[in-house]
Amino acid sequence: MAVYTEVSDEELTDFLSHYEIGDLLSFKGIAEGVENSNYLIHTTNGAYILTLYEKRVDPADLPFFLGLMDHLADKGISCPVPIKQHSGAVLGVLADRPAVIVSFLEGMWIKRPKNQHCAALGAALAHLHLGTTDFEIKRPNALSLKDWRPLFEQSQNRADEINAGLETEILAELDVLETNWPDDLPAGIIHADLFPDNVFFLEGKLSGLIDFYFACNDFWAYDLAICLNAWCYEPDYSFNVTKARALLNGYRRIRPLSQSEFEALPLLARGASLRFLLTRLHDWLRVPDGALVRPKDPMEYLRKLRFHQSVTSATDYGLQA
Amino acid sequence: MAVYTEVSDEELTDFLSHYEIGDLLSFKGIAEGVENSNYLIHTTNGAYILTLYEKRVDPADLPFFLGLMDHLADKGISCPVPIKQHSGAVLGVLADRPAVIVSFLEGMWIKRPKNQHCAALGAALAHLHLGTTDFEIKRPNALSLKDWRPLFEQSQNRADEINAGLETEILAELDVLETNWPDDLPAGIIHADLFPDNVFFLEGKLSGLIDFYFACNDFWAYDLAICLNAWCYEPDYSFNVTKARALLNGYRRIRPLSQSEFEALPLLARGASLRFLLTRLHDWLRVPDGALVRPKDPMEYLRKLRFHQSVTSATDYGLQA
Repeated sequence: MAVYTEVSDEELTDFLSHYEIGDLLSFKGIAEGVENSNYLIHTTNGAYILTLYEKRVDPADLPFFLGLMDHLADKGISCPVPIKQHSGAVLGVLADRPAVIVSFLEGMWIKRPKNQHCAALGAALAHLHLGTTDFEIKRPNALSLKDWRPLFEQSQNRADEINAGLETEILAELDVLETNWPDDLPAGIIHADLFPDNVFFLEGKLSGLIDFYFACNDFWAYDLAICLNAWCYEPDYSFNVTKARALLNGYRRIRPLSQSEFEALPLLARGASLRFLLTRLHDWLRVPDGALVRPKDPMEYLRKLRFHQSVTSATDYGLQA
Repeated sequence: MAVYTEVSDEELTDFLSHYEIGDLLSFKGIAEGVENSNYLIHTTNGAYILTLYEKRVDPADLPFFLGLMDHLADKGISCPVPIKQHSGAVLGVLADRPAVIVSFLEGMWIKRPKNQHCAALGAALAHLHLGTTDFEIKRPNALSLKDWRPLFEQSQNRADEINAGLETEILAELDVLETNWPDDLPAGIIHADLFPDNVFFLEGKLSGLIDFYFACNDFWAYDLAICLNAWCYEPDYSFNVTKARALLNGYRRIRPLSQSEFEALPLLARGASLRFLLTRLHDWLRVPDGALVRPKDPMEYLRKLRFHQSVTSATDYGLQA
């Protein structure tokens, strides 16, 4: 949950005067997202989301993120669509921050996804991958293999505060991943953060995807690995192979996996676990005084990592080669 | 800002099945209100607010609060209207908390009220007072004169942590108020918390009042005193007599003030200042670990109190007798 920036009445009125979205009726800070300030606005035309980008988003990346949402919407993949100002620009400035208005997407995220939600997610992820092969802007993954060791070094001397032996365990995993990470898998745009709270459903059907602020170019199968971690564990951290099978088969029906992707999946899942373990560890050790957001537990991802270390092949995820 | 309670998908679906409000389209925690958890929901019928009452609200008071909103709406005073379940009940249970759905009120609160907003507020407050003389449920003010000393005693030994000499200053003020507090002013239902964030405007016109969870029976002019404090100070704590005049005259055009109310106003304003000083002091000294809400600054109300101590008559608020 997060609303960080106060917007004055005058600034808001001035900002909205650049848009053709009807007359403002209401304006509520919403308690979702941790990177940006989000407001749900009602106008005489309908509902919109106003987003102010806080400092964790690099303004240089915004043309990529906003262009991607526009591109996906053009391809029929439901997501928030940036609204153009009179000038044609989609990016403005409000309260000294980069700001956009996007269409409001009806739908709710599912707190406890079931098999059918995982299957729908898999299909949507494949459509996202295939629908962006002609998207022209590139953005390297800022949290890929080569970034993990330097990121860990910022927390290394405090890792054992979280769990005894964690430093040694992470160093060993970094060695394995750096030695074995594939370099030739099918790649393109990935969402890179497609957790359940970024996927909306209406009446059981997937109604849209949101929050593209980690999207980047990387292996498509790595995106699947992130989703396996985010969608297929039970609250007690047991891995639900039925959900994993539903997710992977949902994906494969739209975009078949190659043999090399199939073989790489357990290692990619270890990498996806470590990536979230490291960012959570970093944030956990650096909660600012008076923070309004509680950090997420890094230990959840240590447990997930250990499960994937025990996997011998993607058949353990319910897949048949 | 506050969303305290997580609601599961199944609990929400079950709760909504008791209402005739159309099919659920979206459900967002909103970052407003500090006492309760509030969600803005969209359905095929329109927009609603779902409120879960957290522990600071006494469930025994809910029939008063909900009945009051219903009563005001019947009198044409725009406010959220509780929606009835199929059974006719307005109060339900969700996530183990008392919960209601109310109509969504379009409009925005004004962060920097101008004279005309103060005038409109005064008129709305008078309509609220006169419109509730036939409301049959009573609720004593839980934060009235007799409650202030016991409340202060909970913080007394730490008051000087906030400001040197604060303990002595508050004790002296309590003596003055307990000796001089009036006992025979016109009384009825008061809102008791009509700060700018509880008053909505649309296109410059007051469009509704919200948040009746401090409403109670007390002197009407005490409600005016609370509003003088909440609406008529500038950010540097200087008192804006033009705004005060607008507020008071806006009120008097609908409900004239008696001579005794006129004379009591400076003392009532001192009491209103002390009441918010004491609750803020209490909360300031008791921020729970991991709190997601920042407490409000008690010193703001010490400055307001000192101004009213310097006032010799209500003419200092821009009023003519």
